[in-house]
Amino acid sequence: MKILVLGADGYLGWPTTMYFAAKGHEVLGIDNYIKRQFAAEVNEEPLFPIKTLQDKIKYWNIITKSNITKYAIGDITNYEFLSTVIKDFSPDCIIHYAEQPSSPWSMFSYENAKRTIENNLIGTFNVAWAVKEINPDIHIIKLGTSGEYGSPNTDIPEGFFEYEYRNRKETRLYPREGPSIYHTTKIQDTDLLHFFVRTWGLKVTDLMQGPVLGIVTEEMLLGNSVPDHTLFTSFHYGEHFGTVLNRFVVQAICDYPLTVYGKGGQTRGYLNIKDTVQCINLAAETPPESGKLRIMNQMTEVFTVNELANRVQIAGTKLGLDVKISNVPNPRKEAEEHYYNPEYSKLLNLGLQPNYLTADVIMEMMQIVQQYRKQIKQNTIFNCNSWNT
Amino acid sequence: MKILVLGADGYLGWPTTMYFAAKGHEVLGIDNYIKRQFAAEVNEEPLFPIKTLQDKIKYWNIITKSNITKYAIGDITNYEFLSTVIKDFSPDCIIHYAEQPSSPWSMFSYENAKRTIENNLIGTFNVAWAVKEINPDIHIIKLGTSGEYGSPNTDIPEGFFEYEYRNRKETRLYPREGPSIYHTTKIQDTDLLHFFVRTWGLKVTDLMQGPVLGIVTEEMLLGNSVPDHTLFTSFHYGEHFGTVLNRFVVQAICDYPLTVYGKGGQTRGYLNIKDTVQCINLAAETPPESGKLRIMNQMTEVFTVNELANRVQIAGTKLGLDVKISNVPNPRKEAEEHYYNPEYSKLLNLGLQPNYLTADVIMEMMQIVQQYRKQIKQNTIFNCNSWNT
Repeated sequence: MKILVLGADGYLGWPTTMYFAAKGHEVLGIDNYIKRQFAAEVNEEPLFPIKTLQDKIKYWNIITKSNITKYAIGDITNYEFLSTVIKDFSPDCIIHYAEQPSSPWSMFSYENAKRTIENNLIGTFNVAWAVKEINPDIHIIKLGTSGEYGSPNTDIPEGFFEYEYRNRKETRLYPREGPSIYHTTKIQDTDLLHFFVRTWGLKVTDLMQGPVLGIVTEEMLLGNSVPDHTLFTSFHYGEHFGTVLNRFVVQAICDYPLTVYGKGGQTRGYLNIKDTVQCINLAAETPPESGKLRIMNQMTEVFTVNELANRVQIAGTKLGLDVKISNVPNPRKEAEEHYYNPEYSKLLNLGLQPNYLTADVIMEMMQIVQQYRKQIKQNTIFNCNSWNT
Repeated sequence: MKILVLGADGYLGWPTTMYFAAKGHEVLGIDNYIKRQFAAEVNEEPLFPIKTLQDKIKYWNIITKSNITKYAIGDITNYEFLSTVIKDFSPDCIIHYAEQPSSPWSMFSYENAKRTIENNLIGTFNVAWAVKEINPDIHIIKLGTSGEYGSPNTDIPEGFFEYEYRNRKETRLYPREGPSIYHTTKIQDTDLLHFFVRTWGLKVTDLMQGPVLGIVTEEMLLGNSVPDHTLFTSFHYGEHFGTVLNRFVVQAICDYPLTVYGKGGQTRGYLNIKDTVQCINLAAETPPESGKLRIMNQMTEVFTVNELANRVQIAGTKLGLDVKISNVPNPRKEAEEHYYNPEYSKLLNLGLQPNYLTADVIMEMMQIVQQYRKQIKQNTIFNCNSWNT
């Protein structure tokens, strides 16, 4: 297959680029480095320095003795750029990660909220329009978020559900309401893609992904037992761009109490970064039929924040760390205890082999973070901005 | 009250401006004339020439011997402009009409679709953000569209509904899916405002309005039996900016068959322009509580397109016209026969006195259009662009 990865410099984009390249697919990675800019604005750099996409791909091609992985630097909100790339490369599948991915960042200021709306909606619109114009057969895989659903008092289906109102039945997208501007844009993206699918028969998979954890994927090992750090992906641990488990691991390593927001009963479905790339591949190998939006919930285990903190504490103890947990005032407007029961069988049925969150997984992360302990910026570990003031 | 009308130059904005001014409210009308630009691009001018907002307001103040109605020319997607106006004027209520309002126009080209998304979403975002920052007590009344619901196989509630999934219950917004890019942006607007209401306790009314018909409102009469044409609102009759009944009336007057799309079983809830201004006033007089998005379905009667065409035919016959009806290929991707049963009791319960679609109402419209018969552009009457090619 020919795979176009949008946002190929990112935490998930880069491992995805390598994953498909390692399988022998032709991959073209695109990025405009806007996430690097966004992260720098809030003083959050990755734990270890990351080469540019150009240099990562050059290095990858050298080390794998291959030349099928390419890059293009540009902004997908620029239709001229995006449509030219799609015409020239002629992909079978577009993997769309090129969105502002942080909910706290989207809530930080007027400018951040506006840029999140513009970047995410115009980017997704351009992808859909270009595919409709150039080749409606191209499969679009868009990274959604399980946060679109919020925390309803019912089970959460994988996208659509049948409901009854006044003794008549209908099937539509489950009603979604998210806790941030970022989440709202993801709901809007889904509705936009659904419209394109209904109207022009596109083939779209929307993956409602839970928070991702982890650092290393198979491709960083290159067949060895120790990863090649030059191939590492951008690992964030700050308030804005670090996902919760990654943040906890860094806090544990530098003797900072794990910061649990409020009561810590917030429940989500999580997955390992190794499973993200697996899921994307499973989706790419099985394109949906034209005209039907396919939604799959992308997660492998459900935890409360307290459960995550406890697991990090246990793993830390095994490594001789004294990990403390601290409940801090919740900066977010969200339920701290709630019903949560998402369905997530579709990807398992396609063959997903989950990498569950064992103590070994956390300890492996801790050992890598330990090597970069001196580079941890203390003020990035917890710098809490309230969302609703 | 102090009323800020966004989109005050428009078909509904101008009658609304006069309605509140006539009641003695201080009104500030804002427009940037972008709809005039959009309409001119597709060669659709209003049936009769319309003065600028500045001149309409000057004329209104002279003729009503008043000076409480003011204007400001500018673009609400410019936050600096909008927030300065809100700070300076300090409204009690903002009536938000400032959106690209045409579904066919939004489907015409890439540029039109993109401008619809940007204009509608950034405009609405700016209004919500400015109110949150400046004074969360300001009541926002946003014109939504009943088209957000599409044509579900169940009854349509007024916004929220209780549903059951796997034996558990929840209440959320009814799942919406609209038939155009325009409708999709309106769904997205609703979700955005809902987010602001949940997070920052804003007071928002979202009016899911059906297609509007008519020309004359009470304020254009100034107490006389014949309207003052200088106070007329922009009356469009083309494919893009004319609503269906208005288009039929113009077609009838110039002996062109009424163009019914497909089978003509498309069913919607309609209302007279006199009822639109009444509804807005009823909403303004009863602001919702903080933190609860209030949605009301704004319509007074439900018709199929065939029923509308038949009523125009009957009214035309009474005036000695020979009105023909022609079923043309449907340019839209929509069901031509479907279940449709919206609830619309909230505004009636607030005191709405409907102006139903009688033969007299249609004949009055025909008599006005007849006076401008020579100005009707034949190529505007039916210039059908398919949506899904």
